[in-house]
Amino acid sequence: MGEPLQGESGPRKVRGAIADLAVSQIREVSRLGREDTIALWFGEGDAPTPSFIAEAAVRALNEGHTFYAPNRGIPELRESLAAYMRGLYAIALDAERITVTASAMNAVMIAVQCVAGAGDNVVIVGPLWPNFAGAIQIMGAEPRFTPLSGSDAGWHLDLDRVIAACDSRTRAIVVNSPGNPTGWVMSAAEQEALLALCRARGIWVIADEVYARIVYEAKCAPSFLQVAAPEDRLLVINSFSKSWSMTGWRLGWLVAPADLGETLEMMMEYSISSPATFVQHAGVTAVREGEDYVAGLVAGYRTARDVIHQRLSAMARVRTHLPAGAFYSFFAVEGLDDSRTFAKRVLAETGIGLAPGSAFGPGGEGHMRLCFASSPERLTEAMDRLAPLLG
Amino acid sequence: MGEPLQGESGPRKVRGAIADLAVSQIREVSRLGREDTIALWFGEGDAPTPSFIAEAAVRALNEGHTFYAPNRGIPELRESLAAYMRGLYAIALDAERITVTASAMNAVMIAVQCVAGAGDNVVIVGPLWPNFAGAIQIMGAEPRFTPLSGSDAGWHLDLDRVIAACDSRTRAIVVNSPGNPTGWVMSAAEQEALLALCRARGIWVIADEVYARIVYEAKCAPSFLQVAAPEDRLLVINSFSKSWSMTGWRLGWLVAPADLGETLEMMMEYSISSPATFVQHAGVTAVREGEDYVAGLVAGYRTARDVIHQRLSAMARVRTHLPAGAFYSFFAVEGLDDSRTFAKRVLAETGIGLAPGSAFGPGGEGHMRLCFASSPERLTEAMDRLAPLLG
Repeated sequence: MGEPLQGESGPRKVRGAIADLAVSQIREVSRLGREDTIALWFGEGDAPTPSFIAEAAVRALNEGHTFYAPNRGIPELRESLAAYMRGLYAIALDAERITVTASAMNAVMIAVQCVAGAGDNVVIVGPLWPNFAGAIQIMGAEPRFTPLSGSDAGWHLDLDRVIAACDSRTRAIVVNSPGNPTGWVMSAAEQEALLALCRARGIWVIADEVYARIVYEAKCAPSFLQVAAPEDRLLVINSFSKSWSMTGWRLGWLVAPADLGETLEMMMEYSISSPATFVQHAGVTAVREGEDYVAGLVAGYRTARDVIHQRLSAMARVRTHLPAGAFYSFFAVEGLDDSRTFAKRVLAETGIGLAPGSAFGPGGEGHMRLCFASSPERLTEAMDRLAPLLG
Repeated sequence: MGEPLQGESGPRKVRGAIADLAVSQIREVSRLGREDTIALWFGEGDAPTPSFIAEAAVRALNEGHTFYAPNRGIPELRESLAAYMRGLYAIALDAERITVTASAMNAVMIAVQCVAGAGDNVVIVGPLWPNFAGAIQIMGAEPRFTPLSGSDAGWHLDLDRVIAACDSRTRAIVVNSPGNPTGWVMSAAEQEALLALCRARGIWVIADEVYARIVYEAKCAPSFLQVAAPEDRLLVINSFSKSWSMTGWRLGWLVAPADLGETLEMMMEYSISSPATFVQHAGVTAVREGEDYVAGLVAGYRTARDVIHQRLSAMARVRTHLPAGAFYSFFAVEGLDDSRTFAKRVLAETGIGLAPGSAFGPGGEGHMRLCFASSPERLTEAMDRLAPLLG
């Protein structure tokens, strides 16, 4: 006991790739928050999980569903999810293609582990929430950001930029639609074009579709599952967090080619083995009985979006457009070139918590992200306080 | 749609390290099980989680604990775990060193990700449950097995073998005590010797202590936390699964040097962000109010162990010894050189599900693993059926 460590001159304590992971700028700013902060920096609504879902978890606990579950999820949930997506997207989809994961993040890590290792790179269409880049770095691979084109009319995919970012060691392209933070909703035509590029080069598409239901002009956003063949190199990631207000439950799923089933069984085994068993039973209830809840949730978010858009549009320093999906306003601020410092200033001067655009990679600087999954009262108060700074 | 894939001649679909992951032999055998199989191949007891813990989860759900939790766990649980280990091991331990994980497996993957990447190797003291090797392979590193020395008196650590397995790219040594499958309980002296080796070489110790409470001659097994200094390169993994019969809850924890806190916060964020929030609240109740339950559980396992030991010892082809910890009998069978085939034969001829020793790496062949966390009636029935084959 008490022998000295080798210290700085000895071998590094953790891997370089791990030591180099940057602390999330959102986290850095949010640590400065106080009890009375109106925190709009995280991607989470104000409402707890609806009681019909919580009650399903209680039933499952009472029925003794506290044992290990199959690695890829309980059959009932995989079947329910397949039926849900068949109905939503008007596609054929077998439950064999579905792996239940402990959150979308768990699915992100597994997807990245499957395709990218040391020496590989993964192209990220951004601005994007930072966690894909983290997972890619942990695997010893290189995240390459390629920004969406931004204009006053909104964001759109610039395929030439994506092509320019790819090389022979590119293993996957990551897209997130509806997009966090941009609210961009990728069109079916854009999906087909990207898929054609990936087919020609043998590159995976990793599609983060967790905001699929949080859209304001349709029942759901276009899914890659609607344009791809079952055997395409496509991994679609989804989550219970946003559609059914289940952030704290850690439940998501992954759709993959059927011939990856054995591989994903092992990847789950070596990740967390499976999500909690009774949580999966609650997931069945959410999927089967949750449509009215989703409709009401989105109606509320639409009202919030419209309030925020109207108020922000009236502020002289702000340029913004109506997001078609997700629950963020990602607005540009005139003259802003250090959004991290600005986020701290906004917090100090107004008590409003916003996420700095620079947290979302190249293309994000100059912007701020505001999550509007909150009550009209809180949002109005936030706008009143922000107006002097941004007006 | 429908464009052909590049197929076999194109780039491989998943990374080589992933494609090479072997299907678990336990899984392979267990797939042959039927409804009336007496399945003793997995590491899970027969009893559901005790109701006082399930009720704590229900309370947490009713109180609306369905939102995101801090990445390293709710403060109440980290504090409870620190207090629990301070009491159990008579050590100083700050909650800052504790990271709550979604199962021990989640902690295993994060520990491996922290220390081992492409070109590195990790030495595994075996025979050992197979999942460390899987996590190491996924990270592009090499698992190196070094077997315990076995004798009629039991298993013990052969430090010279461990030293011989290490080279300049060895980043960590994995030990699991009490051991799955061996039941080996590492002594404090063995821990000190291994720690001295690792200190001298700047190598991490990754100690899997999930069976810490499932021991038959003391209140708990010796922990590396009792011999190490807080700043040692030591990662201790533990779990709620075995001590409190919470396998299906996916809750565990990791004890690390305090200066790894920021790193582990990010590793959790990029893994599953945090375990389910209300599950963590149930964990607080398990730790604070679970001592009577643990004592009763272990008393039952002791009875089961003694029955199994007595019966197996009477079988002519079996060599076994009384395991000091965990809930497995890992017995040698005279003349056995293909335990995988034998496990299938045992299943076909007797309806008893055993795990083949070869699933646990070098040193495991020639053995079978039987989990005795089951009722005396089922175990007696299993012994009656095995006797003709092994007698």
